[in-house]
Amino acid sequence: MSSTDLRFADRAAHRAFLEREAPLPAGFRVGACGLEFLPAELPRPARMNLLLIALDRPTPSFAARFTRNAFPGAPVVLGRRRLDAPTVGALVVNNKVSNVCAPGGLEAAERVCAGAADLLGLAPEQVLPASTGVIGWRLPVERMIEALPAARAALQGSSALPAAEAILTTDLYPKVRRAAVGEGSIVGFAKGAGMIEPNLATLLVFLLTDLAVGREALRAALATALDQSFNRISVDSDTSTSDSVFLLSSGRKPLPAPGAFQEALARVCADLAEDVVRNGEGVHHVLRVAVSGAAGEAEALAVGKAVVNSPLLKAAVNGNDPNVGRLLCAVGKVAGAAGMGLDPARVVMRVGGEVVLQGGDMRLDPATEQRLVAHLRKAELYASAPSASGIFKPPIDHPPHERCVEIAIDLGMGWAAATVLGADLSHEYVTENADYRS
Amino acid sequence: MSSTDLRFADRAAHRAFLEREAPLPAGFRVGACGLEFLPAELPRPARMNLLLIALDRPTPSFAARFTRNAFPGAPVVLGRRRLDAPTVGALVVNNKVSNVCAPGGLEAAERVCAGAADLLGLAPEQVLPASTGVIGWRLPVERMIEALPAARAALQGSSALPAAEAILTTDLYPKVRRAAVGEGSIVGFAKGAGMIEPNLATLLVFLLTDLAVGREALRAALATALDQSFNRISVDSDTSTSDSVFLLSSGRKPLPAPGAFQEALARVCADLAEDVVRNGEGVHHVLRVAVSGAAGEAEALAVGKAVVNSPLLKAAVNGNDPNVGRLLCAVGKVAGAAGMGLDPARVVMRVGGEVVLQGGDMRLDPATEQRLVAHLRKAELYASAPSASGIFKPPIDHPPHERCVEIAIDLGMGWAAATVLGADLSHEYVTENADYRS
Repeated sequence: MSSTDLRFADRAAHRAFLEREAPLPAGFRVGACGLEFLPAELPRPARMNLLLIALDRPTPSFAARFTRNAFPGAPVVLGRRRLDAPTVGALVVNNKVSNVCAPGGLEAAERVCAGAADLLGLAPEQVLPASTGVIGWRLPVERMIEALPAARAALQGSSALPAAEAILTTDLYPKVRRAAVGEGSIVGFAKGAGMIEPNLATLLVFLLTDLAVGREALRAALATALDQSFNRISVDSDTSTSDSVFLLSSGRKPLPAPGAFQEALARVCADLAEDVVRNGEGVHHVLRVAVSGAAGEAEALAVGKAVVNSPLLKAAVNGNDPNVGRLLCAVGKVAGAAGMGLDPARVVMRVGGEVVLQGGDMRLDPATEQRLVAHLRKAELYASAPSASGIFKPPIDHPPHERCVEIAIDLGMGWAAATVLGADLSHEYVTENADYRS
Repeated sequence: MSSTDLRFADRAAHRAFLEREAPLPAGFRVGACGLEFLPAELPRPARMNLLLIALDRPTPSFAARFTRNAFPGAPVVLGRRRLDAPTVGALVVNNKVSNVCAPGGLEAAERVCAGAADLLGLAPEQVLPASTGVIGWRLPVERMIEALPAARAALQGSSALPAAEAILTTDLYPKVRRAAVGEGSIVGFAKGAGMIEPNLATLLVFLLTDLAVGREALRAALATALDQSFNRISVDSDTSTSDSVFLLSSGRKPLPAPGAFQEALARVCADLAEDVVRNGEGVHHVLRVAVSGAAGEAEALAVGKAVVNSPLLKAAVNGNDPNVGRLLCAVGKVAGAAGMGLDPARVVMRVGGEVVLQGGDMRLDPATEQRLVAHLRKAELYASAPSASGIFKPPIDHPPHERCVEIAIDLGMGWAAATVLGADLSHEYVTENADYRS
């Protein structure tokens, strides 16, 4: 999926890469600040970041896609309503509290947007909200409105990196990707580490461009790009209540050709989606599952998702254990449950280029086993090193490389194909999620 | 689901319970032995148990249900073929190697059955096979045939417990359940700890009865009982390639009333299914999710399964963290993806009897939080205690109690309901599965 094959020796090298990707397109400014508050739900204080993304001039060219979860957060509800607004001038974004099913959540989102609009000389409906964090908690509206001037004071038009940093929660590092097209560019940044199997969108993704693309073309381009990127990843199979992707155009630069924009947008989305998986909670290995020979694209996607969502396969990969029987189990589970009419004798499965299933039989021997172990070890991002008290914390603050565990499955049924990215299951994931809020 | 509310102070108390449940119905004998072999796939020896279940006289009254996984094991393929045999006289069962997609697997299963038939004076097609263990490995056929006489020599008609022990793999303890009906009884035993979200059957379950029930009635009774028990549990969402449930009647005792048999069978299946979840790999908490107010039973089941299969909710429960936002996320994910048309304002969610969502809002405050934590702690089977090297091993060899984390979800849409059992996600699960084979 990724268009690059990067290696980062350390955090500084990764940081230099992010800075190269981060120059903001013309017409945008971003500014963030932190604030402390006392949640109504827990007897201890918490910290939140507040981010403003502002256009120099309101634009009619904006697009957004939201989660299909049946309990959408208040910012998603409000964002959907404002899709029909004539123009948008700013986004106001916070982490720590997702404002989902919180009493008075919609009014809270409206008040924060109104506060930002007031500061920026906009109408309230020209501001779109986005929130990520704990579900069910109430937004600290007063504290956020008090903090907005500090975010406005921080507004600058040179780098997206402070914005990419402000929206993080359990992410280990920021994620920024850029593509140049003619005189203009597309810059995207994303947050997301857990509760990730997007359905029409992913946690929070912001795509900014100065290329002149009209509203309808922009929305069509976003839908196409998402279907091939964020809708084909899963960290832990949980579709968030807050997934939101925004694409805004300031229209400052001429578009050389429509195809160039779609291609660049697809690349930025694919790269960011892979970044999100690689920085998924507790991820040691990224799995790239290329399914081919399916009767239809939906079947190919279902098989790929079933593989990357199999806890047993994920745990085996985590241990560099090429227990490929679990790969077969995962494919067989979804094919059987969906009545695909799979013929085991026509299926070919490869891991790291090695054939492990063909003609209905697995091909396992000690030499193959050794090569598979080597492939898994090469794709590992880091090894677990628990503290004496059994606490597992990822020892990395940057992605050391962009290698994947490469799984190829030819179903032998038809001509449709899909590639899905996923992650392994580790002690670090359990540690992170057994007590995330404390 | 369980008809009893048992507590076991220690392994001896649990053992005494199992012995009370284990008396074999008239007309059955079981015998097991161990053997060592060298797998063709790995350069180190392994151990296997071999079990014979023999009827004193072949019976036409037998039923079996098998996995819907599209890569069924050779014993499943052979078992399906033999469902039409006039009579069955024995089962031959092994652990360690599941004989799934192994080269020559069907012939290997046939040869082991033929060896058992030869010893017991039966025709080969009167013997049904069942295997559980690693996928893709070949059965050590010669070693198994050499060992069969030892299993036959061990045949006895008093207790099912040696059989329940012989079939274990990563299970912590054996699982046996019994129901008396008139002069006769039904005794069931099961193995299963991982790769468990049965679809029409579960790993290996053997149900033996001396009650006189004809073949067709027996098969209908089994289908009904499974749909309400083993088809409503999930340890880790992975549907095995080997799931098989067998029900055999020796016909030695009169059946007082058909309804009594169905009821007793349902109870044995429900109790065994809960035992399987409680003894799931790394399970610290059993989750009982009662979904009501659904438009149809399929929707209720889908919502229950989505809840017990949410890695984020499972990890939170593991840490006794009442992060109920993840419950909402899981319900919203499946309701949104399936287009159920859920109205968040009509949904009521309870955990441990506490209302956590009503009227579209979550009800969270520090006092509720404390009561939820207490409920989770009370349902915990054991606390994690990693070794200095970070290895997590369950410290129990029996189930200390039968309490569950009680989750109730009223969807507010209709009148259908379903109860699903599931498990949390722990370090012990990751440890078990990151390198199961070594």
